[in-house]
Amino acid sequence: MAVKLYGMPMSTCTTRVMICLYELQAEFEFVRVNPFVGEHKQPSFLSKNPFGLIPVLEDGDLTLFESRAIIAYLLEKYKDQSYDLTREGNPKEAALARVWMEVEAHHYDPAIKPLLFETLVASHFGKTPNQSIIDAKRGEVNQVLDVYEARLSTTKYLAGDFYSLADLYHLPCTRHLMNSPHADLILSRPHVKAWWEDVSSRPAFQKVAINMNFDAV
Amino acid sequence: MAVKLYGMPMSTCTTRVMICLYELQAEFEFVRVNPFVGEHKQPSFLSKNPFGLIPVLEDGDLTLFESRAIIAYLLEKYKDQSYDLTREGNPKEAALARVWMEVEAHHYDPAIKPLLFETLVASHFGKTPNQSIIDAKRGEVNQVLDVYEARLSTTKYLAGDFYSLADLYHLPCTRHLMNSPHADLILSRPHVKAWWEDVSSRPAFQKVAINMNFDAV
Repeated sequence: MAVKLYGMPMSTCTTRVMICLYELQAEFEFVRVNPFVGEHKQPSFLSKNPFGLIPVLEDGDLTLFESRAIIAYLLEKYKDQSYDLTREGNPKEAALARVWMEVEAHHYDPAIKPLLFETLVASHFGKTPNQSIIDAKRGEVNQVLDVYEARLSTTKYLAGDFYSLADLYHLPCTRHLMNSPHADLILSRPHVKAWWEDVSSRPAFQKVAINMNFDAV
Repeated sequence: MAVKLYGMPMSTCTTRVMICLYELQAEFEFVRVNPFVGEHKQPSFLSKNPFGLIPVLEDGDLTLFESRAIIAYLLEKYKDQSYDLTREGNPKEAALARVWMEVEAHHYDPAIKPLLFETLVASHFGKTPNQSIIDAKRGEVNQVLDVYEARLSTTKYLAGDFYSLADLYHLPCTRHLMNSPHADLILSRPHVKAWWEDVSSRPAFQKVAINMNFDAV
């Protein structure tokens, strides 16, 4: 029985999981839950995730939420058919992959998400973009990407000279950033730009990226 | 050779790692790095963590940062001597532990950290606590803890009827919360209060909690 993923095709957290499912060549059923019309706050969905957020994964009687927890479960479930995204066979490489996965979660994501919200999402909720948030968050993204530029001048990928879950985690937000007025944050840094061109060329990401549009909201 | 941990005894991210080291009964050398006098922004420390944050772990020639990544490495390194904090032998329990570890990282921590900063830390940097941040973050913590209260009315611990890393992750911030004017957020919820009394009684936490004071800054 295929796992069931609830989410939206342009959601960064939903697509983080979808990219992983394609990397693992795992079959899945996709169930659309549209937060723009409040479907994530309906009782039937809150019974799956009490925080009322997408994505949710169901595998038989197991219900999971939080994209990074879902991914950890999928990597374990499909470990025989996966490219080694977490480098479990090499404790040092695995540790560095985890460091940069945490950097994405605690530095990149909190800086870039509000920037994307103001730039790409606010208008869909009838809100005017808040320029002071945009300015502050651009500053934070700049600081984070300065560290990335230095890092990527010494290693091909974030955790080392191997593509890992740390890189994959960055794909959804960076895809939206590249389609926003703030693509210069990536393009102005040669090593970050080269990294993005490399990691965004993977077929698993391209299958997902093509549908990451707000047109169909 | 014992691992070397750089940090401060009252830092929530440092103590998250220390509690884990005590749970694992692992020897470690502690090196004090005082952010209140800017030691974390000195070049010698930035060479260990380019984001200039504690804690950092050194194990031989391997240098790691981000507390949750450090913990994942320690659990792997000392897996033969650990209480099974991640339930790796049971995929469903392991998945639920990861869900609630992510909930701590993405819901509890972002709500409670600014509340603790304004209440307990700001004055040490000569800043006046910002009441509007305090009010907003109290509201967020309330929303998160309403979900916890419902969850803990069905299971003894966050991930199930077993103590896991998901519970451990919550200890440092909750310890400071209980020593702040906002302890009512925990005490007003019977199941959350009972959970706190249980998890905070563990010897590994008590060894660390006794030194989590701002007096010695």
